[in-house]
Amino acid sequence: MKKLINEPDAYVDEMLRGMVAAYPQQVRRVEGTDVLVRADAPVDGEVSIVSGGGSGHEPTHAGYLGEGMLDGAAAGEVFTSPTADQLEEMITACNGGAGVLMVIKNYEGDVMNFETAGEMAGMEADDLDIAQVVVNDDVAVEDSLYTSGRRGVCGTIFVHKAAGAAAARGDDLEEVRQAAQTVVDNVGTMGMALTSCITPEKGEETFDLGEDEIELGIGIHGEPGTERTEAMSADAVADHLTEAVLEDVDPADGAEVAMIVNGMGGTPLSELFIVNRRVQELLDERGLQTWDAWVGDYMTSLDMCGCSVTVLELDDETKELLAAPADTPALTVTD
Amino acid sequence: MKKLINEPDAYVDEMLRGMVAAYPQQVRRVEGTDVLVRADAPVDGEVSIVSGGGSGHEPTHAGYLGEGMLDGAAAGEVFTSPTADQLEEMITACNGGAGVLMVIKNYEGDVMNFETAGEMAGMEADDLDIAQVVVNDDVAVEDSLYTSGRRGVCGTIFVHKAAGAAAARGDDLEEVRQAAQTVVDNVGTMGMALTSCITPEKGEETFDLGEDEIELGIGIHGEPGTERTEAMSADAVADHLTEAVLEDVDPADGAEVAMIVNGMGGTPLSELFIVNRRVQELLDERGLQTWDAWVGDYMTSLDMCGCSVTVLELDDETKELLAAPADTPALTVTD
Repeated sequence: MKKLINEPDAYVDEMLRGMVAAYPQQVRRVEGTDVLVRADAPVDGEVSIVSGGGSGHEPTHAGYLGEGMLDGAAAGEVFTSPTADQLEEMITACNGGAGVLMVIKNYEGDVMNFETAGEMAGMEADDLDIAQVVVNDDVAVEDSLYTSGRRGVCGTIFVHKAAGAAAARGDDLEEVRQAAQTVVDNVGTMGMALTSCITPEKGEETFDLGEDEIELGIGIHGEPGTERTEAMSADAVADHLTEAVLEDVDPADGAEVAMIVNGMGGTPLSELFIVNRRVQELLDERGLQTWDAWVGDYMTSLDMCGCSVTVLELDDETKELLAAPADTPALTVTD
Repeated sequence: MKKLINEPDAYVDEMLRGMVAAYPQQVRRVEGTDVLVRADAPVDGEVSIVSGGGSGHEPTHAGYLGEGMLDGAAAGEVFTSPTADQLEEMITACNGGAGVLMVIKNYEGDVMNFETAGEMAGMEADDLDIAQVVVNDDVAVEDSLYTSGRRGVCGTIFVHKAAGAAAARGDDLEEVRQAAQTVVDNVGTMGMALTSCITPEKGEETFDLGEDEIELGIGIHGEPGTERTEAMSADAVADHLTEAVLEDVDPADGAEVAMIVNGMGGTPLSELFIVNRRVQELLDERGLQTWDAWVGDYMTSLDMCGCSVTVLELDDETKELLAAPADTPALTVTD
């Protein structure tokens, strides 16, 4: 195992320090925590959007801090939920008086700790309204290693974008929650792996895949997917993932969609474009219109090689929110 | 070897199709070529900036097409210079009447083919002024496998940014060339690899590195570096690369610098932030001011794990050019 790390114990702390050093105008660290917030948090009179989860998925979550997306991002240890205490500190630091929306990926630890943190923060501050959405876009498996119900994966980035834009234009907490929930209701994702990820602590592969074997439906922590199969071409992978997602999302004939071909961390961008080419062909063959396509590493799994495909069926409202300006380290949308 | 590809022969074509499908508002393909240009090329009355080189370095080069950066990007086969014919087509497609600046990375094939293409294009069009800069920022080795003189690597992205901004504000060809040359004169880079890259054609590692071995000073095609050594910590790697670059660039005491911690393709973003943390600490210890830090995959080497460190000493003029707006698939700078 060769990695560009120092002590495994320092992984999260050093990564966060490297992010703050790179983007001092955009993010700052809440002292004594592993929480990063927008440099100008709390933004008075605006609903705040907070998220977080285990580390190892960078640029998720702190890469999406900034105008038009997230106000706060809590980083747990690698593949481990942030504690309720850390999440409470985040909520408190982001409270600008108009309420806080928690965007939670559906993993048992995350859901439990966010809900506890929300209650604790609410008890501390009388004037703090909290709402939440739980993202469960992974169409591969119904229950999984760390979930009851479906896992939350890369579709979460569309939720951040829509919620952040709704907050930035001045929507109230319930309106922002509704904008986020609309994305949750209309998005699906499925992933696959060519290789296992290797956590800094363990230093060896989380799961075994043969030299000519891939895993379809993999989770972003290496949780089991739907099947192991012989390695296949990029087009066969794209077909498999896209068809599974479309069957779940079931977009109307002629609908407009936004999509993501997301890299798992170790896969070069060139391969993601090869996959994207086929995904967009398929969407076109199905009579769907690709309104926006994102190709790159949006939610990774350390050094895993592989990709996921996300499809979101759009309405006019969601299109407006996705097209609104955002200024974050990992995603910039201009007018 | 497992990759998300179809036939190795189709690698470049399918990747380019995937890029055009993803960014139809920003890039288009010159018919019958592997050249991508800005969707609105040629831009009348503006100096055009063109670049290109072998594929396998994505998002270099086509990811930097757009307002404020490149007008044209030619993609050769993997790690192979584009032909002079392709480069000529690019120059012709980008000729907006105010001249064309060729940004060439210093590899023998690239330099020869660009110069031939420039002459051919100049003979076809009477009114076409062409200038060039040759980027040779790699401080590791003086001559290399494909070069006489130093290699051109990730510092090239700063050259694209500065030249594109100078062109966008209306500088003439000689002024744009000078802005680009100023960056070339003040930038240095050094890279390292934890693992070899694997080309689609060959399907196996380009070079052998032991389980606990790394290579310092590596080139972006896996060309030999300065030394093979035992695996070391992220901080030791950061120290080694940064010190070598600073010795070469030799910035004035208290100078402002822009820097890049660049991923080689297979390294997760989290590790790049850990390296960045240490690089910025070192710059600070040396009394330098980090005016801007870029952390991510800017110029890759397929699936190679590793990173490079780039440092550019700034003057007011270059700062203005780096801060100017750019709108490209891989880099967005807002006002």
